[in-house]
Amino acid sequence: MYIDLRSDTVTHPTPAMRKAMYEAEVGDDVYGEDPTINRLQELAAKLTGKEAALFVPTGTMGNAIAQLTHAGRGQAVIVGDQSHIYHYEAGGASTLGGSPMYVVPTHPDGMLDMDALRGAIADESDEHTAATALICLENSHNRCGGTVLSQEQVAAIATLAHTNGIAVHMDGARIFNAATALGIPVRDLVRDVDSVMFCLSKGLSAPVGSMLVGSREFIRRARRTRKLLGGGMRQAGVLAAAGIVALEEMVERLAEDHENCERLAYGLADLPMVSIQTDQVVTNILLFSLHNADGQEYNTNQIALFLNKAREHGVLLGPMGEKNIRAVTHHGIEAEHIDQALAGIQAALQEIAHLE
Amino acid sequence: MYIDLRSDTVTHPTPAMRKAMYEAEVGDDVYGEDPTINRLQELAAKLTGKEAALFVPTGTMGNAIAQLTHAGRGQAVIVGDQSHIYHYEAGGASTLGGSPMYVVPTHPDGMLDMDALRGAIADESDEHTAATALICLENSHNRCGGTVLSQEQVAAIATLAHTNGIAVHMDGARIFNAATALGIPVRDLVRDVDSVMFCLSKGLSAPVGSMLVGSREFIRRARRTRKLLGGGMRQAGVLAAAGIVALEEMVERLAEDHENCERLAYGLADLPMVSIQTDQVVTNILLFSLHNADGQEYNTNQIALFLNKAREHGVLLGPMGEKNIRAVTHHGIEAEHIDQALAGIQAALQEIAHLE
Amino acid sequence: MYIDLRSDTVTHPTPAMRKAMYEAEVGDDVYGEDPTINRLQELAAKLTGKEAALFVPTGTMGNAIAQLTHAGRGQAVIVGDQSHIYHYEAGGASTLGGSPMYVVPTHPDGMLDMDALRGAIADESDEHTAATALICLENSHNRCGGTVLSQEQVAAIATLAHTNGIAVHMDGARIFNAATALGIPVRDLVRDVDSVMFCLSKGLSAPVGSMLVGSREFIRRARRTRKLLGGGMRQAGVLAAAGIVALEEMVERLAEDHENCERLAYGLADLPMVSIQTDQVVTNILLFSLHNADGQEYNTNQIALFLNKAREHGVLLGPMGEKNIRAVTHHGIEAEHIDQALAGIQAALQEIAHLE
Amino acid sequence: MYIDLRSDTVTHPTPAMRKAMYEAEVGDDVYGEDPTINRLQELAAKLTGKEAALFVPTGTMGNAIAQLTHAGRGQAVIVGDQSHIYHYEAGGASTLGGSPMYVVPTHPDGMLDMDALRGAIADESDEHTAATALICLENSHNRCGGTVLSQEQVAAIATLAHTNGIAVHMDGARIFNAATALGIPVRDLVRDVDSVMFCLSKGLSAPVGSMLVGSREFIRRARRTRKLLGGGMRQAGVLAAAGIVALEEMVERLAEDHENCERLAYGLADLPMVSIQTDQVVTNILLFSLHNADGQEYNTNQIALFLNKAREHGVLLGPMGEKNIRAVTHHGIEAEHIDQALAGIQAALQEIAHLE
Repeated sequence: MYIDLRSDTVTHPTPAMRKAMYEAEVGDDVYGEDPTINRLQELAAKLTGKEAALFVPTGTMGNAIAQLTHAGRGQAVIVGDQSHIYHYEAGGASTLGGSPMYVVPTHPDGMLDMDALRGAIADESDEHTAATALICLENSHNRCGGTVLSQEQVAAIATLAHTNGIAVHMDGARIFNAATALGIPVRDLVRDVDSVMFCLSKGLSAPVGSMLVGSREFIRRARRTRKLLGGGMRQAGVLAAAGIVALEEMVERLAEDHENCERLAYGLADLPMVSIQTDQVVTNILLFSLHNADGQEYNTNQIALFLNKAREHGVLLGPMGEKNIRAVTHHGIEAEHIDQALAGIQAALQEIAHLE
Repeated sequence: MYIDLRSDTVTHPTPAMRKAMYEAEVGDDVYGEDPTINRLQELAAKLTGKEAALFVPTGTMGNAIAQLTHAGRGQAVIVGDQSHIYHYEAGGASTLGGSPMYVVPTHPDGMLDMDALRGAIADESDEHTAATALICLENSHNRCGGTVLSQEQVAAIATLAHTNGIAVHMDGARIFNAATALGIPVRDLVRDVDSVMFCLSKGLSAPVGSMLVGSREFIRRARRTRKLLGGGMRQAGVLAAAGIVALEEMVERLAEDHENCERLAYGLADLPMVSIQTDQVVTNILLFSLHNADGQEYNTNQIALFLNKAREHGVLLGPMGEKNIRAVTHHGIEAEHIDQALAGIQAALQEIAHLE
Repeated sequence: MYIDLRSDTVTHPTPAMRKAMYEAEVGDDVYGEDPTINRLQELAAKLTGKEAALFVPTGTMGNAIAQLTHAGRGQAVIVGDQSHIYHYEAGGASTLGGSPMYVVPTHPDGMLDMDALRGAIADESDEHTAATALICLENSHNRCGGTVLSQEQVAAIATLAHTNGIAVHMDGARIFNAATALGIPVRDLVRDVDSVMFCLSKGLSAPVGSMLVGSREFIRRARRTRKLLGGGMRQAGVLAAAGIVALEEMVERLAEDHENCERLAYGLADLPMVSIQTDQVVTNILLFSLHNADGQEYNTNQIALFLNKAREHGVLLGPMGEKNIRAVTHHGIEAEHIDQALAGIQAALQEIAHLE
Repeated sequence: MYIDLRSDTVTHPTPAMRKAMYEAEVGDDVYGEDPTINRLQELAAKLTGKEAALFVPTGTMGNAIAQLTHAGRGQAVIVGDQSHIYHYEAGGASTLGGSPMYVVPTHPDGMLDMDALRGAIADESDEHTAATALICLENSHNRCGGTVLSQEQVAAIATLAHTNGIAVHMDGARIFNAATALGIPVRDLVRDVDSVMFCLSKGLSAPVGSMLVGSREFIRRARRTRKLLGGGMRQAGVLAAAGIVALEEMVERLAEDHENCERLAYGLADLPMVSIQTDQVVTNILLFSLHNADGQEYNTNQIALFLNKAREHGVLLGPMGEKNIRAVTHHGIEAEHIDQALAGIQAALQEIAHLE
């Protein structure tokens, strides 16, 4: 039995979720007649302080819908160079919708570089240039190691965007982690953005599904885009039932994941060969890299070797970019698993060190 | 409580499905680790005689994936002018993938006109013309009233297509209805096509999900397209569990839906004002139109009025195109409901007739 | 030396055009600084009674720009099933812009079927359906044999479109032929449509170039789309100079092409084996088909054989669709060439008849 | 009368070009029958050492065709973050073809960062990621100030690309400037890339047109894409005639533009307030920035003010990015104009300095 720290996407539905799915009252959601879906959508809108919400099968679809709905064909979407949308969504809006992506640097805390952002914004005055329709944020920020944008940071970007007639979408796959870390309600954290996608799966442990929230008119159009992409499911109430449990019962415990992640971070910091910035670890994700006795950083191949060794010692981790290793805590991972994982990682490192 | 004949998409999961979902063994299907998904995919491949299968959230997505995977940007997809893909999938492959649709007439039995099809096929020799990459069939055929293409008809199109280096995709949302009506195994009916999408929802009553089947290489590429569209769900085994029940327990009873549909057809044929071709009713869908005492066909507005009246009498029906009304039988509709529905329709017709 | 009746696209620039090109005052049109382009654009706008005009390298690009500018991604464009846009522009708007095409039947005179058109129009109320943004007309109509829509026919379609908030674009590649045949000014004929593309090449004999006209705001956006497609040329005044000659000197003589085409039509009607509807021949294009002594229509292969024979007798003709042959009169074709062509065709037919 | 250093796109056709256009033998190039086009295409293929060539109306279209032809929908195109394709072609391949762009840093000499490039390459193994189909280079490099990639630099990128099954396209709008600066034949400089676009306009002074070169099969497919984009012109021989003059008579004199640019660079370096790296000035483009007496760099608004002042003193310059000013030498700009321009710039700077 592995301690699986590859991602919080591996969480299983809780017994309460299974029971809720078993008992879910359902209808045909394409007709808008699934009462459980409708209840979940109302709940999601309320929690985020937005007018309306839409259930979607995945976070990737939620982000794609947001981009296709905010940005027309040929209109630019600005994304961070470390963002999930840019790296892990198969080229989404550019591929499906002809909305080119323009990239600005991401600071280590997940914040977009404001000068670069200002420079990247374009209007329709120059026919050489795709005009900007949308800026995408990510909060918490995956590739930065679960870092969190504050409400003020979000507001700064939103102000710049709105001043230029540009919409802001937040990829909030783990927005509840971010809000937990900041100790503020999600609705405050997303107040200034036009749309948010957040996942019911991942830390909240629902088996399938994400939510897209925004204005009533935005969600009306998003619903049409969802149909286009093939996300208009029928008796989706069976999934929504688990989603309601996720929102009602699973949010508060995210703090435990954060504590476990911090515990892991400090444990890793004590290990030789490990480089980690413990002060960057604020939610349920951490990044670390490895170096040999001479201080030389491990490359992709060496990391792959280490990951295999860790697996042999019962710990599943994942690579992130070329030189980082990512660990993610989540429901099902307790403090004792962290200690076991640290032991396994230490053993793996020793074996790797011997191989050199 | 209504007798809901609008569509077989309104079917609810059975108790066995709910139980299976409750107990489903799950994993992260993006990592390929959901055992129930894997089991369903193997079962679907086996039933259709194809190398591999992919679970997708909806039939629309299954058809979109097939089109995007078979046809590159700028390559033409030939569809029937009455097909679901052309009418009800929001412009799918053209919108998302830049594959223009070319349209050929559909015969009343759902068959494409072979002369028109031959004329519509284009290769790369003429730069004015998008070269054909794919022909889409539909079986059973929704807008034709649930009509069925025989294995020979499918073979005729497949031979023409393959001779020209063109792939064939079957929108088999209701392929089990078609095979039931023909009395042959699904695998025989889809033998000559390169890919098939079929629904676990609709007549088979699963709450959510469809399957796409084809060659191993096709499914490998389809899986990438599914991720792009946002169809790569996590612990989707909760849905697959219901899908397995659908395939194992719900196929044989489709014959009952066909009997009920026939019963409804003959009952309607006995009503004044109703025009119906009972010999076209071979699966679980029927179409009929209305006319007044002078034989004048009802128009869209008059049909809307009738549908409201029928609803008042407890019967839900839907419009199809401009002058047809569609009724669909499905799990949960028994012979007695058919008789009640006929009574309700008769009452509605009488009231409508009085209004004129 | 052939008598080339394949198309009016083969016309050569006149000496006056060559002189104008030689002397053309030019500038960088991407900066809007080419005085000859600016003069041509003003002239085109004035002739068509529209606010603004844009020079584009080809008619295909003009039609593509119009579609991409009027219709957003996922918005439907309705085209006639015999239209040039549908058949000969490589899937343009669908391929490049994700605007699916929906097809309505074309009457023999080039008119769209109004009932089908009404049925094809969709708004945003049904998420299954791409909402209609644009209807495209063609005048004169190529595949119908150069037939002409009257101002009243155009108005009927425009009224239906505008009532539904839909724009109308006219593919007027040969709009001056249409206006000549009707005996009315072009500006009257295009009064009710939102945009028109017409060619300076073809009958008007300029070597390269077409115009897109419409409202000032439409042309502003069209100019951006032109840049995207790669149609923003530099010292394009060399081409515009010829275009100005085309508009100033070459319009009136189109009547001669029509007379020659009629002469050809009556000559063909007198030949055995030829089927032609002379009353349909109203501009510079005619269609005819062939049949053998038993009245059996020639198929594609037999037509190809005939076209080769005609070439051997000095006459170039082209196939149109599967069973028609097209002949097009144009500048450089005089009455005497028509008589020679008829003799050549007659000779070719005799040889073909002997082969049977 | 201004000294126009905004761009070499403002060059006018030479008398020899006007004469060639006047006398050009033409035909319908959509039928492949324009002898002058055919001659130009053969010449372009020969000069670049490629199998085949295609005339296109603009460099933007040439680059778009290359991208759409090399990269399918959903396949990634890697571009430099300072490249013309990324900044000034309206999102081309992403917008028109659904090929997402991925961005790597550009070194000051125009070279792509090789480590970042290696990291950006993706294959089909991970479904989260668009697989790379194409890498685009730019030579000479516009936004870097006309810098030049050596044959070795091109080879290094090509080797990396080809090892990974990826094609390489060179945006060689000014490839003849690059080859001139390096003192090697163009064919050597483009030997390792799969396709090249170069302009007949710009320094070579033709009024309209660019060439795309590559393998015979690539050009066959590119020709289809050109038609799709609306670049299939008719009697384009009138333009090709000027293009032939450009290639035969205008290449050798590019060295003069480079000398003049160097003269301008050294003159600017002597002016107070001007920052310029004279060693980077190797072709016909230079960049400089301005600073005040305290060494503070001028911002966009201050630069706009300066550009207006320079215009008042008879010198046209353009902004490049946020803080640079670009000057481009070209046919029609002689050494004496450089000296006049320097005087005008100096006068403008003095006035600006007074305003502070």
